[in-house]
Amino acid sequence: MESGKRLLVDMDGVLADVYRQFISFEEKESGIRLSIDSLLGKEEYEAFKHGRKHVNEPNFFRLAPLMDGAVATLKALNEKYDLFIVSAAMEFPNSLIEKHGWLAEHFPFITWKQIVFCGSKTVVQGDIMIDDHYKNLDHFNGQRILFTQPHNYGHDDRGHTRVNSWAEIAALLL
Amino acid sequence: MESGKRLLVDMDGVLADVYRQFISFEEKESGIRLSIDSLLGKEEYEAFKHGRKHVNEPNFFRLAPLMDGAVATLKALNEKYDLFIVSAAMEFPNSLIEKHGWLAEHFPFITWKQIVFCGSKTVVQGDIMIDDHYKNLDHFNGQRILFTQPHNYGHDDRGHTRVNSWAEIAALLL
Repeated sequence: MESGKRLLVDMDGVLADVYRQFISFEEKESGIRLSIDSLLGKEEYEAFKHGRKHVNEPNFFRLAPLMDGAVATLKALNEKYDLFIVSAAMEFPNSLIEKHGWLAEHFPFITWKQIVFCGSKTVVQGDIMIDDHYKNLDHFNGQRILFTQPHNYGHDDRGHTRVNSWAEIAALLL
Repeated sequence: MESGKRLLVDMDGVLADVYRQFISFEEKESGIRLSIDSLLGKEEYEAFKHGRKHVNEPNFFRLAPLMDGAVATLKALNEKYDLFIVSAAMEFPNSLIEKHGWLAEHFPFITWKQIVFCGSKTVVQGDIMIDDHYKNLDHFNGQRILFTQPHNYGHDDRGHTRVNSWAEIAALLL
């Protein structure tokens, strides 16, 4: 661990491409395939009419697609930082085991000691936080990295450092 | 929330009487009923030969008995403090949903926002921590309350405040 800094990394909308999953589940539900453009700037449950249903359906989290470049960059970050995966998973209890299995499959280099499933992220401390939600970043004391997702697209950065991809995270932190 | 202080409360060995559960599972396994006296001062997996098997068995956590007085005192603490339940559940992924269900059944006044399941507790911040394990308390910056359990019985308090019951916690914090 080269830097000694503690890095907190979010799952949904940062490691896991939940938008692709929402679009796919919504299409199965309604037959309509939403375009990303039509979702820009809207909150997730405003953008996806059946969103709250989908997050409780089997395999929503377990089979979520990966964000491009997430695995290779997280592997390198894991060598340099005191890394923790921090997911607000507690609202959807069925997601707990799915998220655990998803991490084990895609990120086998992350040990169980590095995983935190919580409700509110206010209880977690670190030096750097990567997240796509203002509610998690706004209260955080360290360096705050806002990962662009449709729901925060075009919104103010609120003083956080915005990144648009894992390549930009690599450029910033490696 | 009268005090504004953040209070972190452990589950196993503090809210849940895992020793009674270990003794019961061990008796089913081997036919031998261990006495608490024979376990004093020994680490859990030293005391219970099949301990690591039991924690992976169905209902070990879901049907764990409650510690005496835990419900009423936690309810009162929840009115006074910014309370979080913090459990090192990540080593045993099957425990995640069992622990979630156990909390919902016995502590319905605790919301999902107040629950943290982690591997290492070094990532969690607060003002007061109640725990039965030195490994969790030793690194903690705030007030450290050591809950007596057979594995820490007769061992040094290491500067933590030792309590022997939920009645003692109530006297200290309410």
